[in-house]
Amino acid sequence: MPDTNIAEKTREKVLKAAKQLGYRPNLLARSLRMNKSNIIALAISYLENPFYAQVVKELSEQLRATDRHILLFTAPDDNQADPALAKVLNYQVDALVMSGTKASRELAISFKKLGVPIVQINRDSNYPGVSTVQGEDRDAGRIIGRHLLAGGHKRFGFVSGIADSSTSLFRLEGYREYLQSHGIDDVQIAYGNNTFEAAANAVRQLLGSKTPPDAIFCASDYMAFAALEVAKKEFGLKVPDDLSVVGFNDVPAASLSAHDLTTFSQPAATMVEKAIVLVDQLISGQKSRAQHLIVKGELIVRGSSRQAVS
Amino acid sequence: MPDTNIAEKTREKVLKAAKQLGYRPNLLARSLRMNKSNIIALAISYLENPFYAQVVKELSEQLRATDRHILLFTAPDDNQADPALAKVLNYQVDALVMSGTKASRELAISFKKLGVPIVQINRDSNYPGVSTVQGEDRDAGRIIGRHLLAGGHKRFGFVSGIADSSTSLFRLEGYREYLQSHGIDDVQIAYGNNTFEAAANAVRQLLGSKTPPDAIFCASDYMAFAALEVAKKEFGLKVPDDLSVVGFNDVPAASLSAHDLTTFSQPAATMVEKAIVLVDQLISGQKSRAQHLIVKGELIVRGSSRQAVS
Repeated sequence: MPDTNIAEKTREKVLKAAKQLGYRPNLLARSLRMNKSNIIALAISYLENPFYAQVVKELSEQLRATDRHILLFTAPDDNQADPALAKVLNYQVDALVMSGTKASRELAISFKKLGVPIVQINRDSNYPGVSTVQGEDRDAGRIIGRHLLAGGHKRFGFVSGIADSSTSLFRLEGYREYLQSHGIDDVQIAYGNNTFEAAANAVRQLLGSKTPPDAIFCASDYMAFAALEVAKKEFGLKVPDDLSVVGFNDVPAASLSAHDLTTFSQPAATMVEKAIVLVDQLISGQKSRAQHLIVKGELIVRGSSRQAVS
Repeated sequence: MPDTNIAEKTREKVLKAAKQLGYRPNLLARSLRMNKSNIIALAISYLENPFYAQVVKELSEQLRATDRHILLFTAPDDNQADPALAKVLNYQVDALVMSGTKASRELAISFKKLGVPIVQINRDSNYPGVSTVQGEDRDAGRIIGRHLLAGGHKRFGFVSGIADSSTSLFRLEGYREYLQSHGIDDVQIAYGNNTFEAAANAVRQLLGSKTPPDAIFCASDYMAFAALEVAKKEFGLKVPDDLSVVGFNDVPAASLSAHDLTTFSQPAATMVEKAIVLVDQLISGQKSRAQHLIVKGELIVRGSSRQAVS
């Protein structure tokens, strides 16, 4: 243990010297003293997807209550947070929240060493020191598979985010599992990579195949909007008569009659709320190990998918 | 002028003392020394409106090139940035960018005193030390008025953002001016306050009046989406046969066939680019006074408005 008196004396020296230098008193300096900056780093991808814009808004608004702010790092996609974050440890942040992107093993290790917690919203991790808040990915996939099978569909497609994103993998797993257990082994997969253009191409690929699906589950509402656009405009399909489309997230635009999108909800506000609770428990030492939380959602049936044949 | 040798000596003392205290070297500490933090504060409102989500994304990505990051402050609306920003000066930010919200006179004065530049994207200001990057608000209003008059419309409505936001005021001014110069004195105005719900209510008010407009110009695409929803779903109107709707911004969703929205473009990427140039010129002293830039846009005619009768 350091001798507090000596530490106190040195601290006074620092402050006095800083004052002599004419530095204006500021919270960054204060953070040196308190060892808390009240700054939470947020690494986020896909801000054009309204779900992630909601995460930014909610995190900023919910942190404001405790006078904390976000230092923002945007990453092009799931696997490219590291370059942007290379310097995050140089800033004295209290925690790192990630969403739509995830920590590499190296990043997780360096944060763990310094005792700075990482909480991922909407991405899995089993690295030490990385907590997660996720939706009901696998269960949701099963429920969507059941809904589409009950609607009398015969050929099933899936538009994935980037290949190794846990949300896409788990949602696909549940979807496939349900369909397989009901005798359907073939799910056609295309990669939308969470961008509008790539999702549109993925749907072109699915609908242009020799045996196009009559039901497509997209791993996000944002990609489902691309599916609806391509299906109606380029392939002249009627939704849901010719094709059912299901999304994920239930972003506000999904309920517009222009989209009328069946989806599985994943409330950003609640996920952020739980992430902040985790951050606080991990900073205060109330929890010492990584935590993994699931936020419940529900299937919301709208006009983009055929209803169960009764 | 301070004696550099003494300053240098004191600085060394600070650093040595800090080292003794076991502080990990960090950029926040470095910012004390260099008087530059490489952090730009961003105050922003209406993140649910994709235009502002684009501003965040663009600013973050474009600043990354020079290794700078955003300290994020979200404000509920145009006039409520101050409480959130009360503490921004306690952090040693190099500049403050604002979008969808604006500096009060008090805020402008305190930033000016400390020599920290403010650049507003999409909001006017004549306060000292506040630079602006704006779209072609007035001209766009005129062009939209001309487009709608040419389409044979008789009664004109306007859905405004909050009453004193410059974008809404200028767009309305141009719109009204053009219509007045062509003998139309009455523009029905309702306040959508830049939220979806308030915009929906504003449109209900306009369309529920005794002499409902057959053309509505909304001060943002986001509010125009609410107009399309209410007009079609609640009033059973055909767009554009019964009602033309025009937005502003040309956010990506405007071009979806589900919306097919006529709008006036305002490119977020270009506005952000110009804002960063201003920030750099003002920080470096290359410019010493507030600058005011206009970014050009164009009318993009789509299916939500009737074409000129020829």
